Parts: sequence; C-alpha cells; structure tokens
Amino acid sequence: MYDRIKGFRDFYPGEMSSRRATTDVLEETAREYGFREIGTPAVERAEMWTDKSGDEIVDELYSFEDQSGRHVTLTPELTPTVARMVVAKQQELSKPIKWVSTRPFWRYEQVQQGRYREFYQTNVDIFGSSEPEADAEILAWAADAMTGLGLTGEHFEFRISHRDILGGVLESYDVDIDTEAAIRAVDKSDKISQVEYHDLLIDAGLSADQAAEFADLIAEGDLEAVKAFADTERVTAAVENLQNVLDAAEDFGAREYCTISLETARGLDYYTGVVFECFDSTGEVSRSIFGGGRYDDLIESFGGQPTPAVGVAPGHATLSLLLQRAGVWPEEEVTTDYYVLQIGDTRAEAARIVRDLRNRGHVVETDVAGRSFGAQLNYADSINAETVVIAGEQDLENDEVTIKDMESGDQTQVSVDAFPGDLERPTLSDFE
Amino acid sequence: MYDRIKGFRDFYPGEMSSRRATTDVLEETAREYGFREIGTPAVERAEMWTDKSGDEIVDELYSFEDQSGRHVTLTPELTPTVARMVVAKQQELSKPIKWVSTRPFWRYEQVQQGRYREFYQTNVDIFGSSEPEADAEILAWAADAMTGLGLTGEHFEFRISHRDILGGVLESYDVDIDTEAAIRAVDKSDKISQVEYHDLLIDAGLSADQAAEFADLIAEGDLEAVKAFADTERVTAAVENLQNVLDAAEDFGAREYCTISLETARGLDYYTGVVFECFDSTGEVSRSIFGGGRYDDLIESFGGQPTPAVGVAPGHATLSLLLQRAGVWPEEEVTTDYYVLQIGDTRAEAARIVRDLRNRGHVVETDVAGRSFGAQLNYADSINAETVVIAGEQDLENDEVTIKDMESGDQTQVSVDAFPGDLERPTLSDFE
Repeated sequence: MYDRIKGFRDFYPGEMSSRRATTDVLEETAREYGFREIGTPAVERAEMWTDKSGDEIVDELYSFEDQSGRHVTLTPELTPTVARMVVAKQQELSKPIKWVSTRPFWRYEQVQQGRYREFYQTNVDIFGSSEPEADAEILAWAADAMTGLGLTGEHFEFRISHRDILGGVLESYDVDIDTEAAIRAVDKSDKISQVEYHDLLIDAGLSADQAAEFADLIAEGDLEAVKAFADTERVTAAVENLQNVLDAAEDFGAREYCTISLETARGLDYYTGVVFECFDSTGEVSRSIFGGGRYDDLIESFGGQPTPAVGVAPGHATLSLLLQRAGVWPEEEVTTDYYVLQIGDTRAEAARIVRDLRNRGHVVETDVAGRSFGAQLNYADSINAETVVIAGEQDLENDEVTIKDMESGDQTQVSVDAFPGDLERPTLSDFE
Repeated sequence: MYDRIKGFRDFYPGEMSSRRATTDVLEETAREYGFREIGTPAVERAEMWTDKSGDEIVDELYSFEDQSGRHVTLTPELTPTVARMVVAKQQELSKPIKWVSTRPFWRYEQVQQGRYREFYQTNVDIFGSSEPEADAEILAWAADAMTGLGLTGEHFEFRISHRDILGGVLESYDVDIDTEAAIRAVDKSDKISQVEYHDLLIDAGLSADQAAEFADLIAEGDLEAVKAFADTERVTAAVENLQNVLDAAEDFGAREYCTISLETARGLDYYTGVVFECFDSTGEVSRSIFGGGRYDDLIESFGGQPTPAVGVAPGHATLSLLLQRAGVWPEEEVTTDYYVLQIGDTRAEAARIVRDLRNRGHVVETDVAGRSFGAQLNYADSINAETVVIAGEQDLENDEVTIKDMESGDQTQVSVDAFPGDLERPTLSDFE
C-alpha cells in the first residue's frame, strides 16, 4: 500500500547484520586510534552549504522550510557540521581533536549501483594539527580499517595528491588559464578520450603543445619532475608536503597502499592540501570507494580560530561493493544460543531457565506464540538455535528437562537443578 | 557564524559516550532476547501519517516536497515504517518477527526538558503473535533493559491498561457519550482538578453522578469491579487479556514493575489491546518516560495479511532524565591504554610500538602535531592515558624506551625488544 521512497533502503536483519559488522570494524579501529565518538544532527541550516560549497552538493540538497520559516536541509555530508561544532567549543576542546561518527546522509542524486539518496558514512577527522603526521594518521586509520575488513593491498589503493600541485603547475604557465576548467578536465580525464581531454585543456587556455605536455606531466606523476617543471614556491611546498605525508605514512604502515596520482582532484571546494581517494585496484568497482583530505581553511571561514583539519569518510555503499567484489563481505549470521521449548503448561519453569541463561549473557528465545512442539522446533531451527531445552510436563514431574543438540539431533534428560546450574554455557556435551 | 537549529543537539564525546553506553544496554538486552537489528529510512511518504494517524503527530511533521514532487516527511516514529516492511516481505519472514533498532526521529514540537525536535528511540517489536506472552516479553525486555541500566523497582513503574476497558465501560452506559472526549478527559485527569475532570466527563455526555462513579471506578483500577460493572463481552475479554498478560509477565520477571492503571490511554490511534507507559516512581520526572502496546490492526490497514503486533520504544531523552534523577547516568569515561611519546626523531620506532599495541586491540595515541615533551605529556594526561611509553633518542641509542605509569608517576627503562614483546597488555608493573 505504501512504498519506500526511491534511493532509500530498508535493511532487514540479514543485510543489517552485514552493515553492522562493517561499521563495527571501522569504529573499533577508530577507537584504537583514540578517536572519540560524537553525535550530530540530521538537519542544519541550508546556508551552511548554499553560502559557499560546490554546486555539486547544492543541487542535490534535500532542503525545505521548517514550520518557523527556517531554510534547512538534510545534511549531505558531515564536514560543515563538525566544523561548526569545533567553532562552538574551540576554547574548551583540547587539541588535537579526534572525532569519529557513523550515520546517514542525504543527497538527491541519480540512483545507481552503490549510490543511494540515503547513504551511510563513517567520518573520521583530526582538528588542530597541520603536521604531515595528522594526514598520515588518517591514511593509516583508513588502511587499518580496510585490512581489518579483510581487504589487502591486492584489493585497494589510495590515490594521493596535493591540491596545490595541479593549480600550481597551471599557474606556472605564462598564459591566461581557466584553472577550474583545466582541473575539471583532469578530473574527467580517465572517463574521456585523450583527444577530448586535450581539447578541454585547450579550451581552458593552454596551447595544443602545452596541453599535451601538461597531460603527460600529470599522468606521469613524478614529483621531482613536477617540482622542476613548475619551479614555483607553491608547487615546491606542495610536493614537499606530499612527500612528508608519504614518509609519515611509511612509519605508520600505510605507505604501501598509496599511489601518487596527480589526477586525483577531490570535487569539494574546501580541500586545501593533501587529497586522496580509495579505488578498487582491479578497477572492477569503477567509481572512487571514498575520499578524504586536508581542509585547513574551513573552520576559520566558519568564524573560528584558524584550525587545520584533515579527515576521511568511507561510504558504506561503495565500500560494500568492494568487499563483495573481494569476497570478504561479512555474510549474515543469525545465531541463537538456546531455544527453550514449552510442552503443555510449563511456562513458569521454561521462563526460569530462559532468565537464568540470559543472565549469563546468552541469546535465548522461548515460545511467545502458543505454538505446537513441531512449530517451535522449526522456529528454533530457523533461528539456528545451538541447543534446545525442552521443558515438557512429564519430564518436569520428574524434575527433568531434555537438552537437545540441534546439529547432531542427540538429546538427553538432565535434572532441572543442573540446568544451567553452575555452568556458564551448558551444552549437551556437559551431560553426556 | 552558523548556529545549530533549535531542538537539535550536538553530542560532544562526553555526552556521546553516555548516550552510547545507554544504547548499548538497550540493544544488548534485546539481542539476548533474540531481537534482530534492522535499519530504516529517515524519510517516508507523508501519506503514511496524514492518511490516518492521530493529529497529534501530523501537526508535528517535518514534511516537504522532494525534487520530484513527492510529499515526504522525516519520520516522527518507527511503527508505520516497520509495518510497511512487514507487509513488503510477509511471505518470506518467519514468525514471530522480532526486530530492534535505535535511531533518531523528528517532530516539530515545543522544546522543553527531555523533549527535543530530534530525538532518539530504541524500538522493539514482535509481529505474528497475539498471545499474552508476546506482550509480556515486551514488558520483560523493557524491565530487563531498565534494570540493566542500574534502575530498580524503586525508580520506575509500568502503568498498564487495555484499550478496550475505558471504551467498553463508557459504552456500557445507556446514554449517548462522546467516547473520544471522555477518554481525553481521563488522559488529562492527573493534570487537572477533580471538578474540572468531572466537568469534562459531563461535557462528554455523562450525568454528574455517572461522572463521579466512572471516575472512581477507573481511578480504583480494580479489574474485577470493572468487569462486574460493565458486564459486557468487550470489557470482560479486555480484563481477561490484561490479566493473562500480567500472569505471563509474572513468569517472565516483569510483573513486579507493573501497576494496573486504567487511566493510561496512549495517544496514538493504532493501539488495540494492552497499552502501558513507564513512569518515574517518585514523580520527579513528571512526564511518561516511554510507552508501548499492542497494535493488531495496523499491518492489515497497510494492505498486509492480518498480523498481530506489540512493541515499545524507549526514548533516550526522557530515559536519561530518569537515569540522572536515579543517580545511575553512565558518566563519560575517556580512557586511553597507551600514549607513545616521541622525543626527537623517533617517529619510526614510536610508530612500531603504537602498531604493535593496537594490533593487540588497545587504544593507543601518539603525537601527530609535532609537540614538545611537556605538551605531549599534558595531552596524554588529558586523555587519561594509563601508561606513557617514552621513545627518546638517547634511550633508543641504548635500545631502550621508558615506561611511565601515569597514576603513580613512576617509570622505568625497558628494552625495546621487550615492549610489548610477548606481553598482551604490558604496564609498568611487568617490569619492576
């Protein structure tokens, strides 16, 4: 009668348990790095995006007027919200601030494989350090999270660059260039032909020779060559910073996953330094899995003290495509430790056993639907109960219950006093 | 520069860790009962509420038109969504269906203590059983969750009733009564004077004598007296069902928290049987903490096969008021197992130690901000690091690091090979 909205998903327990297992690895890894969990609102003032962010996002906002006439929006990303939160408490927060959170975001965009209108991200950010170690810690967390999910260097790579390299190289040409247009051309280069790519560069203001030269230089990705070619302070500083980040990443164990890729130019306007994107090494998942980078100016632009920042936000939908492709998607595992089966009027004794077992932390179900022996046994099987405890009227007259192992089908009778008795996790084998 | 929207909250790590601890208890308790986690969309078609739900909710919707002209809303509650999900897969889902989830909801309403426009609930529902054991399992889960949070019968009570009792008793009067108005009067009775209460009942169609008699009968809450007074099949069945639920709750360990309270009349239209609300026993938190009940008709009204259902949804904001009042609010505990302090150019060795310790599952931080010895030690103290491992250039020349216990301030030098070496969780005491 009512249908789900396009681009929004229902997660039934099977899919949800996979999503939860993935989230747990990302969050547990962040916890080991000392990132602290925060909680953030789903709705913010739309101006936080319309004032200055890239059109890419603004066109996709789920924005509306609330009942007081506020122009608000479902948040399409977390970064402006955490920047606002840092500004609001910048005196109180001891630096570096290291935050993590997982939650949905919303963008009205074309629905396709791995792209939904409601999508989940785990955001990890460090505020208050401009040192390369902060960038490297973000890369190291991302690498540890990916390997924690069962992926290896065979499966993924981080393509890494620096915001100032493309712009600085273009700037070094002694001609009038539309830098933004040229960067957009680079961003598109792997999806279009070489001729089209060069034409776009020429449209942006380069000569045909310059376009070819520039395209080769960027594709090559040789940092020393780039530095020598541009020979400007901006490019030299950018290259050195990128190298320092890679050196720190080496110490932190993430260097092996990084490939220098000067064609990497993250779309969002707020990035200022190192930027990177995670890709499927085989190219089978063709889109970027997720990305991140340094955004040193955002907090100041939000009215705060200048505060350097760097972060990354794995999106769970593209990540799950990669995990499935790599054969390490955590499949659903419905497990149940005990089902306590009632025959006849044995609810009181069954409930006593259920409560004793749950007090030991086990997953325990019993009949809440007035069902027959067979229906209860089928249900116990459907939830993969490991042990079924049968509380039957006749058995109970002899102060006994039947313990059934659901894998072997074997069973035995035991004294009600002995179940669970002093045992932490009794199974059939304890009574044989 | 940008402010947070009224009624929406930012959770910084301190408050967030309390919220997380609370959520973990609710979800872990549900897991022990065999409830399976689901994930649900934040946005649904507004018609799911405007078509038939109570005005109470409709006036509070954050609804808007999306870019395709769909009339959508931020979901103000979960029940219609889970009903839609059951309808969508009713053939595949084995019954009883037992689902749990925690997430935010949104209502545009007056902001006050414990009431926000964005609020978090843990929803727990059972579909496919009309038996009293299902109602009782919901009560038992709620009671176990509350006691798991550190509350006792001194702190909270479940006021329980049945939807058909009030209506059935009113129906038994041989006069023309506006039942809805009379029920609204009962709902308000503890907030107004007795005279005002009786006047409202008289406005609804009762005589002055009837009003006094009815008010006494309901306030008394004696089920046998109510059954005898009405003497109708509807009231008799309702009383029996309520008694059966309380009997099952006795076996399941939840009876001691239940008080029969015929004045309890949940506002939402879809309730059909037993309804209950959780209150602060001392009355210090004056509003209902949360509520639940049986809604046997909703799934059929959504176009599904008739499917009985019962559920409850603790809201975290009111719950936190009760936990604070009772002195069992889980306070923030920032804990860090290790801080690895770098002096001079010791990043590589420090990083090796950090990685070894994180591989053992510990929470470990190191410098990512190029800070001095003193600043690093202050930071280590601010994150409550238990042990600081000092990687100094001079020590490392002797293949040693210094292990400092932050509580005592004591420290000793140990061989780099021995840290962490074979130890799972080395502390200073391992080397003394």
